[in-house]
Amino acid sequence: METVRIGMLGCGVVGSGVATILDRAGIDIAARAGAHLEITRIAVRDLDRDRGLPLDPAVFTDDAESVVIDDDVDLVVEVMGGRDVAGQLVRTALRHGKPVVTANKQLIAHEGPDLLAIAAEAGVDLMYEAAVAGAIPIIRPLKESLAGDHIRRVIGILNGTTNYILTRMTEEGASYDDVLADAQDLGYAEKPDPSADTGGHDAAAKTAILASLAFDSAVVDGDVYREGIERVTATDIEVARRLGYVVKLVGIASEVDGQVAVRVHPTFLPTTHPLASVRLAYNAIFVEADGAGELMFYGPGAGGEPTGSAVLGDVVDAVRNLLQTVRGPIESTHRAAQVRPMEDLITQYYLLLDVEDRPGVLAAVANTFGEHAVSIAQVWQEGDADHAQLVLITHRAREGNLRATVDALEATGGVLAVANVLRVESEGRRD
Amino acid sequence: METVRIGMLGCGVVGSGVATILDRAGIDIAARAGAHLEITRIAVRDLDRDRGLPLDPAVFTDDAESVVIDDDVDLVVEVMGGRDVAGQLVRTALRHGKPVVTANKQLIAHEGPDLLAIAAEAGVDLMYEAAVAGAIPIIRPLKESLAGDHIRRVIGILNGTTNYILTRMTEEGASYDDVLADAQDLGYAEKPDPSADTGGHDAAAKTAILASLAFDSAVVDGDVYREGIERVTATDIEVARRLGYVVKLVGIASEVDGQVAVRVHPTFLPTTHPLASVRLAYNAIFVEADGAGELMFYGPGAGGEPTGSAVLGDVVDAVRNLLQTVRGPIESTHRAAQVRPMEDLITQYYLLLDVEDRPGVLAAVANTFGEHAVSIAQVWQEGDADHAQLVLITHRAREGNLRATVDALEATGGVLAVANVLRVESEGRRD
Repeated sequence: METVRIGMLGCGVVGSGVATILDRAGIDIAARAGAHLEITRIAVRDLDRDRGLPLDPAVFTDDAESVVIDDDVDLVVEVMGGRDVAGQLVRTALRHGKPVVTANKQLIAHEGPDLLAIAAEAGVDLMYEAAVAGAIPIIRPLKESLAGDHIRRVIGILNGTTNYILTRMTEEGASYDDVLADAQDLGYAEKPDPSADTGGHDAAAKTAILASLAFDSAVVDGDVYREGIERVTATDIEVARRLGYVVKLVGIASEVDGQVAVRVHPTFLPTTHPLASVRLAYNAIFVEADGAGELMFYGPGAGGEPTGSAVLGDVVDAVRNLLQTVRGPIESTHRAAQVRPMEDLITQYYLLLDVEDRPGVLAAVANTFGEHAVSIAQVWQEGDADHAQLVLITHRAREGNLRATVDALEATGGVLAVANVLRVESEGRRD
Repeated sequence: METVRIGMLGCGVVGSGVATILDRAGIDIAARAGAHLEITRIAVRDLDRDRGLPLDPAVFTDDAESVVIDDDVDLVVEVMGGRDVAGQLVRTALRHGKPVVTANKQLIAHEGPDLLAIAAEAGVDLMYEAAVAGAIPIIRPLKESLAGDHIRRVIGILNGTTNYILTRMTEEGASYDDVLADAQDLGYAEKPDPSADTGGHDAAAKTAILASLAFDSAVVDGDVYREGIERVTATDIEVARRLGYVVKLVGIASEVDGQVAVRVHPTFLPTTHPLASVRLAYNAIFVEADGAGELMFYGPGAGGEPTGSAVLGDVVDAVRNLLQTVRGPIESTHRAAQVRPMEDLITQYYLLLDVEDRPGVLAAVANTFGEHAVSIAQVWQEGDADHAQLVLITHRAREGNLRATVDALEATGGVLAVANVLRVESEGRRD
């Protein structure tokens, strides 16, 4: 049995996971791949750090370029993260005929189309199962298992940090700031700036990747409409609970009139939806297809070994192809669907208004909604004499009209502020 | 773009699903496969039946042999079911160098090792994603996505009919016979003999297939320990509910001391387990791996289009390989694990005993358990003066000891009958 020599870029949490699993399950993995897999080179910044891994210290190098160029590396695993240096190295590796397996969601979400073209030209694999939802197999199911079907919509809980925060806010009635501080102390959220997660950037990158695969198009990070969870309050969550919803940060990619609508934002999700019960740092992706119906994929969305498992699944696949001198299936972009303007979204909305507690205010508010063709499904008033709040749930309305309504509400007499606006997934309706 | 000609064996519910999806999504499917897919031959028994499908009537033939032999068929889809004729035809197709995609769980579960060997010798693909859990991608995730990991256990709700019956019994407090009759009227269970589903045979075939893939071994249908749901009563379900469990028919394949333990039976499943909320005819598979952690795959487990979607996913994969003149990954059986004797299973048990309502019975029963080294975790008495029942939950015990206990209980003074014995999945423990 021959040996395939793996060069790894980076050796942080995911790289350590890869090395650990390969050491533990190497015999099984070799039998499935048809070759022994050996990590022979690892590019790191700090050569002196003891990583406590079952590896010969001689594999470590601070010359990353050599790992992607030298002939004694057959396949490259990129787990260093970041875009500039990683992108350069991945391009060089592909151009030198080395298959690349990466866990880098930002790189694929921003530069995937270009990188995949380079891989195609070089005739080698570029695989990225680990870039979305950690251990959960979702790239291969979308690209291969559902290749004989038409996908209508993908909706996912794709970021463990935000789901952890929202779960604890929901179950403890706690405030965003309190839970965030706790999540930072526990290592679930980054310090001092958690915004890559809480601002929805991480989920947006993953949603772009899923949208590309689901709709045979080259959707990139910048195409994704994005809102984070920073403005979600304990009040929003309590209102949702009373109405039979939970608040979740979701990435949604759907096909509407031949366009791809792609967005990340907190949403009211019916408690009966299979995604509603996904707690804490778990991820899940719900796929709606014409033939298959409704599928869900659930598991840990991050972590060294879970992500390492996804990396190694790709590595085995790439090695099998390498031994047969073929490539795996190529991403189809034949539809080249346009991105649907967010203004054209049609969904339900929840609004929380701070209002003066006096006669006539409700009539003025209702009038403003009516003028913009947004129909109110439910409305009630909360609070005490000093601090009155109106809660409204709309029927399905166009986002453009809703935004015009919000602008007009801010100029409506008796309305002190539009405290929050969140989208609502309609029960039993998926769009 | 060239055309790949598909010969289909059978045109029932699944075959119609395949034809319908291909007609609807053919352009997308061609772009992904790299070839136009055309169903050019379909072998059926009744040529005169109008199936209302978007197909040229000239494709239908009653000469199945010609479909697997003739040069004008490039790839064979087997959706006729049954073992003898289907097995013959699949073998002939493979020996004639035609890749085969099948939805036939019985064929793969009983004859998979032999068929896969024939496919390997002929150098063509034999794919069967549709044989397990309908539309849910599970074969490819186990065989490819988790190829770089070590799987510890697979536990699945693999039969929609039994899950439908148990869900309704649970939610309505209804009896098995009443719900079964209703399920038969609604077409969820077969008439007059529902035992392929209710006896666990269908789930056992699927469990054998999953065990083979998860543990790199050739596990066949006959290796699976099997019990059906016929003896599950409303009392069992009510006791389970009170203790925080639901009763589900599960297929479980696990690795214990280098052996593969593989079984299908109704079980008490903690309501907190992700599988517990899988309702009605849905299927789900829960996978525990060393690296990936806990994953779940959920969706419709049957139906024409869901199963057709899985068939077509395999067809696209097989066509891509055909165009590159390669084969997809081969099932590894390098571990060749032995099947673990059921007597060596260690788990918890629920027992329901009909007893005489008189002093000394409980002491005699407890004594019998103790003599066989089975420790009781909970016990209480139910019923009225005429009809006393003892409910017992054991600690984890060896199945062989439990069986000896049951035999001894039947000879214990005051015990009228052992009304039921069901296994219990321990909370938070997975074995």
